[in-house]
Amino acid sequence: MSSREKHDRMANAIRFLSMDAVEKANSGHPGLPMGAADIATVLYTRFLKHDPANPHWHDRDRFVLSAGHGSMLLYSLLYLSGYEDMTIEQIKNFRQLGSKTAGHPEYGHAAGIETTTGPLGQGLANAVGMALAERIMNAQFGDKLVDHYTYVLAGDGCLMEGISQEALSFAGHLKLNKLVVFWDHNNISIDGPISLADSTDQLARFAASGWNTLAIDGHDPEAIAGAIEAAKRSDRPTLIAAKTTIGFGSPAKAGTNKVHGSPLGAAEIEATRKALGWEYPAFEIPSDILDAWRLAGLNSAKKRNDWEKRLAETETEIRAEFERRMRGDLPAGFDAAIADYKKKLAADKPKVATRKSSEMALEVINGVVPETIGGSADLTGSNNTKTSQTKPISAEDYGQRFVHYGIRELGMCAAMNGMSLHGGVIPYSGTFLCFSDYARPAMRLASLMGIRVGFVMTHDSIGLGEDGPTHQPVEHLAALRAIPNHIVFRPADATEAAECWQLTLENRTTPSTLALTRQNLPAVRTEYVEENLCGYGAYELATADGDAEVTIFATGSEVEIALDARKLLQAAGHPTRVVSVPAFELFEQQSPEYRKAMIGNAKVKVAIEAGIRMGWDSFIGTDGIFIGMHGFGASAPIEELYKHFGITAEAAAQAATARLQA
Amino acid sequence: MSSREKHDRMANAIRFLSMDAVEKANSGHPGLPMGAADIATVLYTRFLKHDPANPHWHDRDRFVLSAGHGSMLLYSLLYLSGYEDMTIEQIKNFRQLGSKTAGHPEYGHAAGIETTTGPLGQGLANAVGMALAERIMNAQFGDKLVDHYTYVLAGDGCLMEGISQEALSFAGHLKLNKLVVFWDHNNISIDGPISLADSTDQLARFAASGWNTLAIDGHDPEAIAGAIEAAKRSDRPTLIAAKTTIGFGSPAKAGTNKVHGSPLGAAEIEATRKALGWEYPAFEIPSDILDAWRLAGLNSAKKRNDWEKRLAETETEIRAEFERRMRGDLPAGFDAAIADYKKKLAADKPKVATRKSSEMALEVINGVVPETIGGSADLTGSNNTKTSQTKPISAEDYGQRFVHYGIRELGMCAAMNGMSLHGGVIPYSGTFLCFSDYARPAMRLASLMGIRVGFVMTHDSIGLGEDGPTHQPVEHLAALRAIPNHIVFRPADATEAAECWQLTLENRTTPSTLALTRQNLPAVRTEYVEENLCGYGAYELATADGDAEVTIFATGSEVEIALDARKLLQAAGHPTRVVSVPAFELFEQQSPEYRKAMIGNAKVKVAIEAGIRMGWDSFIGTDGIFIGMHGFGASAPIEELYKHFGITAEAAAQAATARLQA
Repeated sequence: MSSREKHDRMANAIRFLSMDAVEKANSGHPGLPMGAADIATVLYTRFLKHDPANPHWHDRDRFVLSAGHGSMLLYSLLYLSGYEDMTIEQIKNFRQLGSKTAGHPEYGHAAGIETTTGPLGQGLANAVGMALAERIMNAQFGDKLVDHYTYVLAGDGCLMEGISQEALSFAGHLKLNKLVVFWDHNNISIDGPISLADSTDQLARFAASGWNTLAIDGHDPEAIAGAIEAAKRSDRPTLIAAKTTIGFGSPAKAGTNKVHGSPLGAAEIEATRKALGWEYPAFEIPSDILDAWRLAGLNSAKKRNDWEKRLAETETEIRAEFERRMRGDLPAGFDAAIADYKKKLAADKPKVATRKSSEMALEVINGVVPETIGGSADLTGSNNTKTSQTKPISAEDYGQRFVHYGIRELGMCAAMNGMSLHGGVIPYSGTFLCFSDYARPAMRLASLMGIRVGFVMTHDSIGLGEDGPTHQPVEHLAALRAIPNHIVFRPADATEAAECWQLTLENRTTPSTLALTRQNLPAVRTEYVEENLCGYGAYELATADGDAEVTIFATGSEVEIALDARKLLQAAGHPTRVVSVPAFELFEQQSPEYRKAMIGNAKVKVAIEAGIRMGWDSFIGTDGIFIGMHGFGASAPIEELYKHFGITAEAAAQAATARLQA
Repeated sequence: MSSREKHDRMANAIRFLSMDAVEKANSGHPGLPMGAADIATVLYTRFLKHDPANPHWHDRDRFVLSAGHGSMLLYSLLYLSGYEDMTIEQIKNFRQLGSKTAGHPEYGHAAGIETTTGPLGQGLANAVGMALAERIMNAQFGDKLVDHYTYVLAGDGCLMEGISQEALSFAGHLKLNKLVVFWDHNNISIDGPISLADSTDQLARFAASGWNTLAIDGHDPEAIAGAIEAAKRSDRPTLIAAKTTIGFGSPAKAGTNKVHGSPLGAAEIEATRKALGWEYPAFEIPSDILDAWRLAGLNSAKKRNDWEKRLAETETEIRAEFERRMRGDLPAGFDAAIADYKKKLAADKPKVATRKSSEMALEVINGVVPETIGGSADLTGSNNTKTSQTKPISAEDYGQRFVHYGIRELGMCAAMNGMSLHGGVIPYSGTFLCFSDYARPAMRLASLMGIRVGFVMTHDSIGLGEDGPTHQPVEHLAALRAIPNHIVFRPADATEAAECWQLTLENRTTPSTLALTRQNLPAVRTEYVEENLCGYGAYELATADGDAEVTIFATGSEVEIALDARKLLQAAGHPTRVVSVPAFELFEQQSPEYRKAMIGNAKVKVAIEAGIRMGWDSFIGTDGIFIGMHGFGASAPIEELYKHFGITAEAAAQAATARLQA
């Protein structure tokens, strides 16, 4: 058997596993795996540095299937290469409840799935983050420990999504030359030929942002190999435009949108078996081909052994630090540093915006946690994410800790996801809360994957003032709280900001959003408490002088208003307690007893938040009083806005009094 | 005074109005208006076809300030050109409560503000939609009535946002040659020089998508004029890269990020006055310059008169149709067609997915409303947005009614906003509900502007099955309901789908989202009712046999489950009513009496929706029973998923029974 014949048969193994699994599931996308099988075979058998027996090896190359609908390509590769948890049973259970082989690749389901993909374009941006994390870790630990490539397979759809531009222009600017993107250029999307909707010269577009670009026949194994070799020599990221035929091998459907997202049907699969000379029943891979695949899976074993040796020979301290970072553990001094800082805050009682107190907390954290990587989508001075320890990362210096992500909110957050997935770094970065809308698709995937990312969202209400309703979040707190497994923190002062950051860093399986004010806020936590009270999600900040007639719940900048309202009410003889609610999601995780006690039995319950009511009924009931926003904001100075929209201590006290007297 | 001197002084009028207004407001962005004043002056005084005395003239050129933070540029232009409602008092009240001169341009605040901008990149995409609407209307009504340009001023930030790629590749593909984009290429963003985060060759990038590209000195009036003339001769959209100096004229701050988003300060304004030889106090424009501006504002008066004449000479029927469309009125036959169709549905009782019944309703609507323009982000067959009347629009044929928007959800929705703003067409288009996340920034602006757009969001729950959690919306209904002035419809069958579409078309000041199923649903409305019951937002679909012990609220695909649960409960002796809730937002607008009656007094209240609970407490109270999702979905066939997540009639009946017996 010639090497070409062998390649073809190895690639056909992917094709038939994919079309058979889709057929059995009666659902799925056979076209991409069939079209990209040659690219994937060359990459996995001749280039990819990975060890199926040690799939989490830190210095492995990363492979991202950005076109996630072609999931059977990845599952086939993992099964054929010998990843233990990707059995033939899993392949047969494609798209069934509880299987590792979900419709789209789900991070955490099986080893070798480096990220969750499906929402188009995001995988590419994740990969940019991985490639950046590789460079950052390399700058700190050297070639001996960190020296790997990030490969991507992206489809026409990935390149049409706007996020692709954010990702590619960012990667080109940072000259991430260990990033290699295959564009599975099959010219077909769901509606039909790409020419229905696009006529972009993608090579020219990538070149415009400083990429190395190559164009090849995606079914020619030597051309594929040559392109990868050329990419590895490039001083810039590389796009390999690989012309492929979607559904390659299917006599009647190849090259059409009919093979994109539906089973081929028994007859056409039979015809494809004939056309490709594949004589084996469904899910059966002939032993010579499986052996060849498994052998290829062992290709990098020596590289891994050498790497293990280098790691073992590394100076103990450096090695321990490298391993700690890759495990994701925080340094030993973290808690003590936060405790010391909280003591200082209790003494100083600073009156600053929470974006500023976030910066102050980060100054402490970045001093003891060397793996944090800050950033901003061109709002560095506004988001207050840059501390004394963090200087800008650039193509000339990856050994720094601050990323100017540019005006690319979605690309930024997807890149942060990739950095977190890569490991060794803890990314946090920011924009205005209103523009979390741009970033939302990536924030959702962080939640679905359960990874640690800090989304810093400043200017978190009408409190930003004159920029007006386009910039004033109103529904955003509710909309972000709606995302499962996503903690939305809204600290009320510097102490809460410190506690929220502590929780953000400690929580390894849930991303966090920190909603922070532009305007100054007084200290509401005036005494040192060792315990992280924000960890309860809601806690009693001020008790009532007597049996509480009124309970006021509030978050962030409105806690000050709640405390003032309490004063007014108590002065009028109505004992009032105030509960600060820095994180709805954490409160929901408390015991029923704790929650019941916190909600309390006061006759009147009031919630104050400069956003919409949605979500607050679980605290105040449907008959509770809500002091907040009922529509979009307006452009005016902050003091006028709070008055205009009736979000004041007086309004709250008045409403509560009226209710008490009703 | 030479013509150059005159130009300079006219441009300086913009500069000083802008810096003085920002100074007085003590907040705002003087840098862009100062830098782009020359471009704007040439455009408004020598090219823009507009009539300040008749600002809504249908055939005016459109100008979109995509870099909305430079709002004082636009306000200055409107004041100087003689737009009546843009007085010097408004300029002095920049960024104050109730003024027309908000921090960012707000559509509807003043004539001449063609769209709300500020969230970067969206103005550019709006403009693409406007330019497309112009071509569509031109194809239908000819050059005599529709023949105008769309001009955009975009900043470096607009071009860094991913949406810019979606917009430009779409415009290039459709060869929208009456679109002219100025790139205010000042090389400065908030963080500093653009080189901190980007090194894209923008001209090459635009050229890669088929644009005509020009590069000029943005302070040379003749170069600006020459470029516009060249753009007008182009058979493709044109990018004019205009090299400018941000904060032009400020001796100490020009060309730096210090002048981007903060007042210059009194001393620096004084220095700028000296540097530019401007001897007038704040807000005073010398009469010769104001006269020159006002005279320029009259430039197009003859063109408008000629157009009025042509309109008057147009055949009565065509003229009436043109005017009806531009007013935004629906055709006379609309209601009757819907009524006939609802009668047919009551007879046929079709069991189809609501995405299909949406298509059926659109088939009726598109037959009587010729201005609807359908589309899809490459999910035409899945979104069911294409009807027999709609064929694809292309660069060769703008006279059709379906747009293949490509895999560009955000660009699509922002373009639809632009189409709606242009007038004469009613855009609707779709993607999967899960990917409303990508489109959200534009959906929010549609709500803020209060314009008519139909966002078709199919595959609206775990009911889509095997594609899994990346594609299964869970929090999306809640997150969209959270947006003010946005109606989220979730019809339960074909009749409700027809009613929801009727409401979508009738509501001229609120955009609508239609959440539609992939899976088939039985008819739940089996008798013809003339009234649009969905207009109530919630209505009693099935009464209780006796005094209701249980009320079940449900939407869309879960109404069937609610009706089945009712059967089980009634069979067990518990009278149960079912309330269908197609639109939360409309229910909130009903009278307190209606709402109270609909909520009812049943001992047990149940809500069923295959999404999260958020928002449902207002129907069932905090102690109500919620049958729905509590986290992300999973990849599996639909029947298994509904069972797995406990969203079944049995589960609902069981929970209600347990509560009744408690």
